[in-house]
Amino acid sequence: MPNPTAAMLVIGDEILSGRTRDSNMHYLAGELTKTGIDLREVRVVSDDADAIVAAVNALRAGYDHIFTSGGIGPTHDDITADCIATAFGVRIGVRDDARAILEQRYAKMGTQINEARLRMARIPEGATLIENPVSGAPGFSIGNVHVMAGVPAVFESMVASVLPLLAGGAPLVSQSLRINRGEGDIAGPLADLAKQYPHLSLGSYPFIQNGAFGVNVVIRGSDGGEVSTAIVKLSALFPEATT
Amino acid sequence: MPNPTAAMLVIGDEILSGRTRDSNMHYLAGELTKTGIDLREVRVVSDDADAIVAAVNALRAGYDHIFTSGGIGPTHDDITADCIATAFGVRIGVRDDARAILEQRYAKMGTQINEARLRMARIPEGATLIENPVSGAPGFSIGNVHVMAGVPAVFESMVASVLPLLAGGAPLVSQSLRINRGEGDIAGPLADLAKQYPHLSLGSYPFIQNGAFGVNVVIRGSDGGEVSTAIVKLSALFPEATT
Repeated sequence: MPNPTAAMLVIGDEILSGRTRDSNMHYLAGELTKTGIDLREVRVVSDDADAIVAAVNALRAGYDHIFTSGGIGPTHDDITADCIATAFGVRIGVRDDARAILEQRYAKMGTQINEARLRMARIPEGATLIENPVSGAPGFSIGNVHVMAGVPAVFESMVASVLPLLAGGAPLVSQSLRINRGEGDIAGPLADLAKQYPHLSLGSYPFIQNGAFGVNVVIRGSDGGEVSTAIVKLSALFPEATT
Repeated sequence: MPNPTAAMLVIGDEILSGRTRDSNMHYLAGELTKTGIDLREVRVVSDDADAIVAAVNALRAGYDHIFTSGGIGPTHDDITADCIATAFGVRIGVRDDARAILEQRYAKMGTQINEARLRMARIPEGATLIENPVSGAPGFSIGNVHVMAGVPAVFESMVASVLPLLAGGAPLVSQSLRINRGEGDIAGPLADLAKQYPHLSLGSYPFIQNGAFGVNVVIRGSDGGEVSTAIVKLSALFPEATT
């Protein structure tokens, strides 16, 4: 059975303006690979309601799971929860269990709950809360869409809350070799090897280090034995390769 | 007149598997902001022909400029140039001027040109070459799509080759303030200020540092004087803020 598929939607002007370097994509990609869920697509859109609604609806129709990051805080530019409600055609309002989480959190910190903070208890109808051990305010899952915060520490804690609830597939096994040659030197033999192993994926990732060209070749597959055999064959072709 | 719009398409399994942390998106975002071109959307897709063709066609219909990164090297998994030809419905083949660039480059380096390397001279009909001072093999522009390599040093050199050829708009001016308070404390006054300045964008970017919550507020606009006035008002609301 093929692995479940996933897409990610990153929401935030700050990524698109170059102000902030997104790190959530890389984090989620690594966690999903470990879980055996195939991340197939990522989209980054701005804090624009039409763009968010359109992306959510396109992605949730195409993949088994959608993970979003950003736009669920207390300020005027946090519009993700409303957009998700629009995308699903459901109502949104302050929910008692979410409000209780916030009240308890703020009481402990000696912080006033106010109108802005209460926005973070607004949850689309029919959603399930995602726990946020870092800062309290919950994310939520609705249908196949998992809505999480953008602050990396919070995003990561929400991913840790939600991933164990999802059914994963077979985690991919991967092995790699580093070859200090130009990609054009290895391309022919690599293509031949790829043809011999139709169930494996052979990726070639060139780099430049101290002005010299090199390639990392990564072989991935669900059968660890087959991956090892292919790596041994590759090493025989390029004896100077290192792991 | 509104600024030209742009989207980016990042092509590569290695980003989606979490193996590689993409840096081209952040780089391009910063360069476009300086140029006055608004980056509105980024998509990341795998080395899959259908996914690449669909994304290219969706994005080129929606934005003034599309920038792609990845998949134009010599190996079997480099399929971007073919996908672009498919998306535009044009032929692709080895082009003399691109081949001459490669031959000159490899002659200088004492490297053999071979069948794999010659793949990098395959250019869709009607495209213009993008110069690559780092490693020779050119990118290309066709219609409103600019096709570039994934290796960051090469990508950046291609961006530097192509951006001066595009008409930019008014670069956004931005100023920011750091406020060491929870986002919920500043959300109300910030929303009021945003209403007073409908032509400015006020973004609120929370962070956690040494366990304490803080916010960077960024005010952006094309009128530098208006941005400054709004920042002064914001500082007056939160006298503890620092730049």
